[in-house]
Amino acid sequence: MSILSPDTLAELEKQSIELPSWAFGNSGTRFKVFGTPGTPRDPYEKIADAAQVNAYTALAPSVALHIPWDLVDSFDDLRKHAEDHGVTLGTVNSNTFQDDDYKFGALTHEDPAIRRKAIDHHLACIDVMDATGSRDLKIWLAEGSNYPGQADLRGRQDRLQESLEKIYARLGDDQRLVLEYKFFEPAFYHTDVPDWGTSYAQVSALGDKAMVCLDTGHHAPGTNIEFIVMQLLRLGKLGSFDFNSRFYADDDLIVGAADPFQLFRILFEVIRGGGLNNPDVAFMLDQCHNVEDKIPGQIRSVLNVQEMTARALLVDRDALTAAQKSGDVLAANAVFMDAFYTDVRPALAQWRESRGLAADPMAAYAASGYQQRIAEERVGGVQAGWGA
Amino acid sequence: MSILSPDTLAELEKQSIELPSWAFGNSGTRFKVFGTPGTPRDPYEKIADAAQVNAYTALAPSVALHIPWDLVDSFDDLRKHAEDHGVTLGTVNSNTFQDDDYKFGALTHEDPAIRRKAIDHHLACIDVMDATGSRDLKIWLAEGSNYPGQADLRGRQDRLQESLEKIYARLGDDQRLVLEYKFFEPAFYHTDVPDWGTSYAQVSALGDKAMVCLDTGHHAPGTNIEFIVMQLLRLGKLGSFDFNSRFYADDDLIVGAADPFQLFRILFEVIRGGGLNNPDVAFMLDQCHNVEDKIPGQIRSVLNVQEMTARALLVDRDALTAAQKSGDVLAANAVFMDAFYTDVRPALAQWRESRGLAADPMAAYAASGYQQRIAEERVGGVQAGWGA
Amino acid sequence: MSILSPDTLAELEKQSIELPSWAFGNSGTRFKVFGTPGTPRDPYEKIADAAQVNAYTALAPSVALHIPWDLVDSFDDLRKHAEDHGVTLGTVNSNTFQDDDYKFGALTHEDPAIRRKAIDHHLACIDVMDATGSRDLKIWLAEGSNYPGQADLRGRQDRLQESLEKIYARLGDDQRLVLEYKFFEPAFYHTDVPDWGTSYAQVSALGDKAMVCLDTGHHAPGTNIEFIVMQLLRLGKLGSFDFNSRFYADDDLIVGAADPFQLFRILFEVIRGGGLNNPDVAFMLDQCHNVEDKIPGQIRSVLNVQEMTARALLVDRDALTAAQKSGDVLAANAVFMDAFYTDVRPALAQWRESRGLAADPMAAYAASGYQQRIAEERVGGVQAGWGA
Amino acid sequence: MSILSPDTLAELEKQSIELPSWAFGNSGTRFKVFGTPGTPRDPYEKIADAAQVNAYTALAPSVALHIPWDLVDSFDDLRKHAEDHGVTLGTVNSNTFQDDDYKFGALTHEDPAIRRKAIDHHLACIDVMDATGSRDLKIWLAEGSNYPGQADLRGRQDRLQESLEKIYARLGDDQRLVLEYKFFEPAFYHTDVPDWGTSYAQVSALGDKAMVCLDTGHHAPGTNIEFIVMQLLRLGKLGSFDFNSRFYADDDLIVGAADPFQLFRILFEVIRGGGLNNPDVAFMLDQCHNVEDKIPGQIRSVLNVQEMTARALLVDRDALTAAQKSGDVLAANAVFMDAFYTDVRPALAQWRESRGLAADPMAAYAASGYQQRIAEERVGGVQAGWGA
Repeated sequence: MSILSPDTLAELEKQSIELPSWAFGNSGTRFKVFGTPGTPRDPYEKIADAAQVNAYTALAPSVALHIPWDLVDSFDDLRKHAEDHGVTLGTVNSNTFQDDDYKFGALTHEDPAIRRKAIDHHLACIDVMDATGSRDLKIWLAEGSNYPGQADLRGRQDRLQESLEKIYARLGDDQRLVLEYKFFEPAFYHTDVPDWGTSYAQVSALGDKAMVCLDTGHHAPGTNIEFIVMQLLRLGKLGSFDFNSRFYADDDLIVGAADPFQLFRILFEVIRGGGLNNPDVAFMLDQCHNVEDKIPGQIRSVLNVQEMTARALLVDRDALTAAQKSGDVLAANAVFMDAFYTDVRPALAQWRESRGLAADPMAAYAASGYQQRIAEERVGGVQAGWGA
Repeated sequence: MSILSPDTLAELEKQSIELPSWAFGNSGTRFKVFGTPGTPRDPYEKIADAAQVNAYTALAPSVALHIPWDLVDSFDDLRKHAEDHGVTLGTVNSNTFQDDDYKFGALTHEDPAIRRKAIDHHLACIDVMDATGSRDLKIWLAEGSNYPGQADLRGRQDRLQESLEKIYARLGDDQRLVLEYKFFEPAFYHTDVPDWGTSYAQVSALGDKAMVCLDTGHHAPGTNIEFIVMQLLRLGKLGSFDFNSRFYADDDLIVGAADPFQLFRILFEVIRGGGLNNPDVAFMLDQCHNVEDKIPGQIRSVLNVQEMTARALLVDRDALTAAQKSGDVLAANAVFMDAFYTDVRPALAQWRESRGLAADPMAAYAASGYQQRIAEERVGGVQAGWGA
Repeated sequence: MSILSPDTLAELEKQSIELPSWAFGNSGTRFKVFGTPGTPRDPYEKIADAAQVNAYTALAPSVALHIPWDLVDSFDDLRKHAEDHGVTLGTVNSNTFQDDDYKFGALTHEDPAIRRKAIDHHLACIDVMDATGSRDLKIWLAEGSNYPGQADLRGRQDRLQESLEKIYARLGDDQRLVLEYKFFEPAFYHTDVPDWGTSYAQVSALGDKAMVCLDTGHHAPGTNIEFIVMQLLRLGKLGSFDFNSRFYADDDLIVGAADPFQLFRILFEVIRGGGLNNPDVAFMLDQCHNVEDKIPGQIRSVLNVQEMTARALLVDRDALTAAQKSGDVLAANAVFMDAFYTDVRPALAQWRESRGLAADPMAAYAASGYQQRIAEERVGGVQAGWGA
Repeated sequence: MSILSPDTLAELEKQSIELPSWAFGNSGTRFKVFGTPGTPRDPYEKIADAAQVNAYTALAPSVALHIPWDLVDSFDDLRKHAEDHGVTLGTVNSNTFQDDDYKFGALTHEDPAIRRKAIDHHLACIDVMDATGSRDLKIWLAEGSNYPGQADLRGRQDRLQESLEKIYARLGDDQRLVLEYKFFEPAFYHTDVPDWGTSYAQVSALGDKAMVCLDTGHHAPGTNIEFIVMQLLRLGKLGSFDFNSRFYADDDLIVGAADPFQLFRILFEVIRGGGLNNPDVAFMLDQCHNVEDKIPGQIRSVLNVQEMTARALLVDRDALTAAQKSGDVLAANAVFMDAFYTDVRPALAQWRESRGLAADPMAAYAASGYQQRIAEERVGGVQAGWGA
């Protein structure tokens, strides 16, 4: 008999984690971007690659787009392409950080013409959402300043609210805006949405269709992220996750790679707060594969989320509550750790097979020959990266 | 002619910084508390010492109390004692971290009887406020947990809100509650109010008389504190400051000692956001003098705040705005730094003399013989510390 | 058949982790030290408690002493007491941070008389080592400064070297000095031995009998501690470990509690570098039990080290090397993680029973009634803490 | 009379700070590199720009080269070009991070052929040094790994030593190797030379001509950098500085911009330890100008170093020592801060004029029309950046 109960398996059955299209392009650091054979040259190839991840895991049925990197002539056509590959198009991500006009800001810029341009870009993103059927517009602001005095922090915050209001007003009834926060980078002195509090204050001023996006790599060192998860769920404002992991800055490593126990704690609070398989809380990856292979990197990532979700579901909540209520620190911690230390992998492999999937998705993908095929076929053209 | 304009001097004239009574008692680390001759033995002596700081600086006309450390038989009598020394009684600080009952929480405790006890303590603090005429009740929660699983983060947050509501309901029309946040310590895994976002969410749920208290030493490494100052002023929820400085944790060093430029930036945002000499925003010190002398340590501290306020008032706001609007990073930064690098000390000394104060308060205090006198007179009894 | 091979079990059989006598006394933060019934009143009772940990785990056959906290009339008698309880006396820890003379330094003090006093204290510690048969003198320097300018950093470093030379000269042929480093606390601006580089430079200047002590909680946030383990083993200067864990500062939590994966990585480098069961590398705990029970807290701790050692021994080194050599990032990481995620607890429980120990030491201790007995018996007297 | 004594001015007269050629090219973050009109297209234009900085400040008489970015057909010709512009060619910086072969390491790579290639690159750099007359080869290793298990930390460290030995052996009698350390980036899990201890251990094993390079932006948050300066000077191994500043990671901002007080403390320890105007300790900038203008950005930077050096020279060392010896914390700190808060800018402007320089180098450069001229003239070609 599996250590995973029918209820647990039912929850796992429902889990889905969106993949970012850009994870399949080349990425790197300011020092160097290393390319790899087989890297997609266009959104169609990115989606084909993303579909591989879903094929081996049944965990990743949708793909997030990044505009303008993923602009195509016909989103209708792209949507059909996705469906043909068994996936759907998901969150639309805007980009206001790669145009020379945005050197000193976009939605917060001093110049109303540049703000207008940035707002219009977001309206165009909502047009894409209408075409793709996407629900969420995700806004990550790369805006900020590098030097004290460079920018008027307060003026920028007020302008940000005005700009967001104009974007928000354009949302359809079933569409949402999720506002990401980030501690630093690419700006080094201040960022305009540096913390959850700022994102929360901004989206609360907008209305019910605006929510906070929590990227697990966007906090100060030492931040208790699961506390923020708890708080945002409590406040009804946790709209989505960008999963990845970090040792130092926004490293954008494979989720669970740097601190698996932290991922466990985060997922426990998701479950505790009713955020698991809750349509209001979108799960997404946001990672870079600088030195590792991209498709298996994504497979490993969604498996990590699944495995940690399974462990977090194993926590004996009644025993935990009893120990907490009695002030038995060691007993409460033991209940918690027991779930973390339980090896769920064999049970998940078995369950995967029962659903017609390979027990070991990493091995199955490696054996499929897909990687070799794309390396051979995708010759010529320009490999996709963060600029396309 | 002074480099400080009449307008600047008029602002400085109004500045007042509250002193914490506990700064005059002994304090230290978990490893050792070093005592010094002349340390006060009771609240009366603490206030006498605090009055010295005001006598030499005209900057510190009020003294915050800590309950139960500063309990006296008659607060009426203590108030008169303070008035006789030229100061008033200010913010009342509660304490729910030194009773055995509070080992696992107070306002958040699982046990309703202990929560009730902690709430009652706060109601008693408001009684003290009624007696002293104090406006603000400051709540710093030492609550949290040390181990993952030890506590139900969400349950504690909900209970915190309930407890705060009961305390809030008791406030008089002219009284306020300010809720401090702290990144960590004394709890090491989670604290129940770890960041400004949590404090903001909690006090917003309470009402207009509840505000956030920002302690400059209670953030993660690298946090841009002036951004938070800006945001809380913008949201109308910055109730008070606890000034001090830190290199690593909550070091509680003399304000301005660790990073004077950060203090300048904070005070600039206070001014920019209308927080200077605004009755809604209380300025207070919260420091420990572990190895340095206490009274001159407080004199140095209020002078540091005054000097940095003067520098921040010197910023040429028009020139700054012009440079910001034109995207001239180096020019904007230069305007900002020019004010920081201007030596305001001679002008402040001159101004001090014009007001009948000593040009050099540190030297004047040292020459006064007060320190020697209290060292000789305060013999016997138990020196005040964090336990009394 | 166990997942633990005979070779692995043979290594585990040899493992020993020294317990600190002070872990059995009360400890806390600068805000409050909570006491618990049954806390030892003297070194004899501390050793009796430490022996309980060994009785249930067979992992902790020795107890470190702290001088003067553990001073007794006859160390010969104490040694016999320990032996009667099945343990031995281990590392001697000096204390130069709780005497008023040491407010501004001990081995680094400006005043030669105070340096002499601190050196003499260490010579007295070596006398204790002679009496107890201890090999290691561990020096943790609480010295440093709180304010820039307060201290002459260079002069202190030179004086430190001179003082250490005098202590080193007194060591017997089979005795060693291990020098701990610490990022900060109790000093907040600088500490005189803040990093491994400083400890390494100091002990290298002394000679072969001086080594570095690595406390896992004494690093800057984000530090890759296993790298330092690797480097010190490579340089032949890793003398001992102080195990504990931290989220923020020197939290002194149960080892493995905050980041079990980090503990795994550290132990892997210990094994990789030949440090496991190497007499030159002493394993010790250095933790505080502020809110959890002390004896089971120590049992949990040594079990955590054992379990992570078992996992680290499970790493398929050949497969890892092959993946590393071929630049297969995901494969190498997978080999590594596979060992970490393997649940060794059932196999360890089984093995424990085969050695005549309880399968579950935590449960067995709880069932033994020891805790209740000491709570009843140890009435009166003064509970041991960091001051005694 | 100037507040700067003749002795102080004599020290300042001797000060020189090397400029990095790459500071004049475009740089940015992984998200975007913004270009500016007038950016150099080749090493000749970079040197012409660097010479402007020296022309207005008399502080920057040499320019560091980066190989291969600054490869030219004839270094003899480049040297003459530099001399014609009043500057010399300085430190040669190697680059082993932008070739596909180096994806998994260079001097530390598992493959001896790639190590050989990286070693040969450094030998070629020494050939350049022979041609330019440069003394120092600076090695910054971008090597490391992103995932636990990816790399054999110990094997890489041993291979690093072997590789460095081969490079060291090729140095001429008057040439040196300086080894930079860096906490993280571009690698996110481990870097092969992460801290001063590792660099110190490596260069000590090489010999007298190998020294440590301290980049002020390459430390963990909260690190006391002036302590490291003190220690390396004490150990005789501080070879050079890379000046810049940081708020979060390796931000590479203008030196002194983020924490001017830290720069002051660093320069005080340089002076205290005999490192000022000591030929063994090279001063260099290593910054990026992402959003600010490049030439005035460098002018501002060298002025910041000069101004802080002047302040640090103003410290009343006798008064400081007296206060330190007497344990008067506040007095010692006051002596230190008094120098920091003294406004040396008017005296430096006056002195500058006495030497035939403009009082305000920033204004003089802006008024010179140079920036407009290069913006107009440098049309066509490819602007230099981190790839060239």
